[in-house]
Amino acid sequence: MKISFEQLTSEFKRVLLKLNFSEERAALCARIFAENSRDGVYSHGLNRFPVFVQAVKDGLIAIDAEPAAVSRNGVVETWDGHLAPGMYTATRAMERAIALAKENGMGCVAVKNTNHWMRGGTYGWQAAAAGCIGICATNSIANMPPWGGTEARLGNNPLVIAIPRQKGSVVLDMAISQFSYGKLQEYDLQGKELPFEGGYDEHGNLTKDPAQIRASERPLPIGYWKGSGLSLVLDVLVASLSGGRSVEQITQAGAEAGVSQFFLCIDASKLDDAVADAIIAYTKSSALTDKDGEIRYPGESSLAKRHQHEQEGIPVNEEIWQQVQEL
Amino acid sequence: MKISFEQLTSEFKRVLLKLNFSEERAALCARIFAENSRDGVYSHGLNRFPVFVQAVKDGLIAIDAEPAAVSRNGVVETWDGHLAPGMYTATRAMERAIALAKENGMGCVAVKNTNHWMRGGTYGWQAAAAGCIGICATNSIANMPPWGGTEARLGNNPLVIAIPRQKGSVVLDMAISQFSYGKLQEYDLQGKELPFEGGYDEHGNLTKDPAQIRASERPLPIGYWKGSGLSLVLDVLVASLSGGRSVEQITQAGAEAGVSQFFLCIDASKLDDAVADAIIAYTKSSALTDKDGEIRYPGESSLAKRHQHEQEGIPVNEEIWQQVQEL
Repeated sequence: MKISFEQLTSEFKRVLLKLNFSEERAALCARIFAENSRDGVYSHGLNRFPVFVQAVKDGLIAIDAEPAAVSRNGVVETWDGHLAPGMYTATRAMERAIALAKENGMGCVAVKNTNHWMRGGTYGWQAAAAGCIGICATNSIANMPPWGGTEARLGNNPLVIAIPRQKGSVVLDMAISQFSYGKLQEYDLQGKELPFEGGYDEHGNLTKDPAQIRASERPLPIGYWKGSGLSLVLDVLVASLSGGRSVEQITQAGAEAGVSQFFLCIDASKLDDAVADAIIAYTKSSALTDKDGEIRYPGESSLAKRHQHEQEGIPVNEEIWQQVQEL
Repeated sequence: MKISFEQLTSEFKRVLLKLNFSEERAALCARIFAENSRDGVYSHGLNRFPVFVQAVKDGLIAIDAEPAAVSRNGVVETWDGHLAPGMYTATRAMERAIALAKENGMGCVAVKNTNHWMRGGTYGWQAAAAGCIGICATNSIANMPPWGGTEARLGNNPLVIAIPRQKGSVVLDMAISQFSYGKLQEYDLQGKELPFEGGYDEHGNLTKDPAQIRASERPLPIGYWKGSGLSLVLDVLVASLSGGRSVEQITQAGAEAGVSQFFLCIDASKLDDAVADAIIAYTKSSALTDKDGEIRYPGESSLAKRHQHEQEGIPVNEEIWQQVQEL
């Protein structure tokens, strides 16, 4: 079943207004959820919407709270998100980082007490659309053991790096776990093996079996010890800069709320697109591993799905779509 | 055989002065090479020194050239390295990024036409010692196929993220390849298997055999498609921002010279060390995979080796030490 972007947006907005979101916030959050589905990131689009609604009903999200600047050090600002909807605060923080970058070449906003931003790529695309390089990161609940350990102490702490480009921005949106729990579940439900070893079984052996990794709760970070280090560094970065909660504190609170994030922009208005064009062309010039395969740059798949879905409609899970219509 | 830091430094300096380095540059480069060995990064310390000397003799490094600012956009500067010694220019660029951050909260210097910085961590430690968060990256010669391809089109493009901390700064120094060619060679010479699959054999199967990966020239990026994307993004970032060479252009020139780098600093003087302390303690609180094992934060091993070598002397490869003394 396929739904238009407009239909999806207006349905999300209807539900959010019913939950007493302001007109502006309902429109913003509805747009972002719909965009996530439109770009093929269903896990943070329609499929996530009922979870978000439940979090609002559970009082984890302060729908009317306004994020506010706490301190400023030159082009670096610290904000308190006051537990406002994460997508709203992230959008505002990135807007501010863009404004700082337009004025000063570069700017940064670190936010404490904010909520889940859904798809990190959203804010990378936002920076790129405004002609800025955007770098942002968030922490999360602990869901991955550190290298050398067996118990979850690290978040998957997504990192986003976006660079604007006329022919399609380069947008890396990368969680530090090799496979998310969502992905593990997807493979598990389909009875499929992972394409690569994604974690450990209960005996401490690497495995491609998603069920065993879900049972052991030992998914792998990308690059083994390297991703483990990167995840820790990102937590220190967002929690130190914002003065907000670390992975430990988020985990101890039980629900993934009140996270820490940062948004950094560099003005890219004078950069030459030809550089990225040439790098992409060179990368694609390699012989392929699979003659029917493809070499893609980060962001390319999202953009392709966006164009496809704008023309053909956005595929939706009928059950969840039904569920949302009944909200 | 063990050598003191002072002996190592003075020997390097002697050789560099003989090559007509200025007193200041000889001292700076000698110190960095000695520090790299002192911190246990022998591949970019003593073991690399003869290669550096050869590059100078081959005219790849303009020993007297002075890097110069080309343009400024607020707190973001672009420099031309004029092919001066990479360690010299990287140190100066990071100094400038630190000064910009002290003045404006944050600052960035992108450098084109520079040379190999040896160990990226050097500049992370430099930023941290000055009380700044430091983020830097470089591109390199193509040495890794992109995801979906079989031919080298990506550099290992190291990424450094450093956060100052009283009890030992957190310094991530991470190349995007899972194992460097240096590491593959090390395992190969010792006739050992890699601890994890590090690339493909000539039939396109993942392997732990370093010899097969060296033969196929298909080492893996960290996180498969994720590292492939990250490497590409870092190349676009450093080459676009600096207006310098991309991995393609460095590769086509044949020698790894005239690379592009960027150095970003955020003033951390107001950050609370307790945040990083708590994150590290929490991470280390996980049960261990191996009862004699350890969970480490990025930078911890370097610091431990630094302390050990400062007391016991720095282990050197006798053959290379001999070779340097004869230079």
